[in-house]
Amino acid sequence: MNDQLNFLQTTLHSEIPLTRQMGIRVADYSGSELFVHADLAPNINIHGTAFGGSLYSICAAACWGLLHLKLMEQQVAAQIVLAEGEIKYRRPVREDILVRCSLPDSESYDRFIYRARQDRKAAITLDAEILAGNRQAVVFKGHFSSAG
Amino acid sequence: MNDQLNFLQTTLHSEIPLTRQMGIRVADYSGSELFVHADLAPNINIHGTAFGGSLYSICAAACWGLLHLKLMEQQVAAQIVLAEGEIKYRRPVREDILVRCSLPDSESYDRFIYRARQDRKAAITLDAEILAGNRQAVVFKGHFSSAG
Repeated sequence: MNDQLNFLQTTLHSEIPLTRQMGIRVADYSGSELFVHADLAPNINIHGTAFGGSLYSICAAACWGLLHLKLMEQQVAAQIVLAEGEIKYRRPVREDILVRCSLPDSESYDRFIYRARQDRKAAITLDAEILAGNRQAVVFKGHFSSAG
Repeated sequence: MNDQLNFLQTTLHSEIPLTRQMGIRVADYSGSELFVHADLAPNINIHGTAFGGSLYSICAAACWGLLHLKLMEQQVAAQIVLAEGEIKYRRPVREDILVRCSLPDSESYDRFIYRARQDRKAAITLDAEILAGNRQAVVFKGHFSSAG
């Protein structure tokens, strides 16, 4: 893992301690997508599958992490918070959890960065998904905003 | 705490271990509302407020717990899962977390119990909210279904 991803994982574990309890690990980063991993064991539920709250939390942490990386790259100091979240559980997750979180289209992303850089209120929506056996198991949408 | 709530808390902690890490405690139950409490400390985020993933998870666990109690009371053996969730964060939560989860109108509830008792696919939506300083901080909607 490179320094940037190592730094993000350390930030997550120290600043959101529950992410350490959940075994969240930053796995990969392409510049526009962030992959975050978590073991099933600490996130299990009564059915022996992943707890819906954990799946939501991992998606939320991954999307926050992706925005955090982008803002650091752009040298924008804005603080971002999750304003709304929606999640659909299409299939149970019976294995270790891998989230893929993606930036939106470049127009939405550029507008977000432009406004955040000016310390104006800025909003952005990120999508995440979790696969189980190569099929989509979870779809997440997170609406983030900067304080402005 | 009475035996019923003690049993629910033990069930949550043993069957969804993350609820123990989050310090979730069943606080009160009126027959149609369940109150669930959690300390801020294990659920804190980078801003010194409650992590959005924790707030979602506490709402989801509370709503699941309320349905679990109702199904036990009605002696219905159906297994319920969270199918979809939506959450809005209106204000940061800077204090210990108290969730109030409520059953829907009696027509929706009765239909859910009626179908679940017959082992048919049954769906129900529960609302939850978290207050901060007597003002609504979080609004949650959980769509649950029984396997059928």
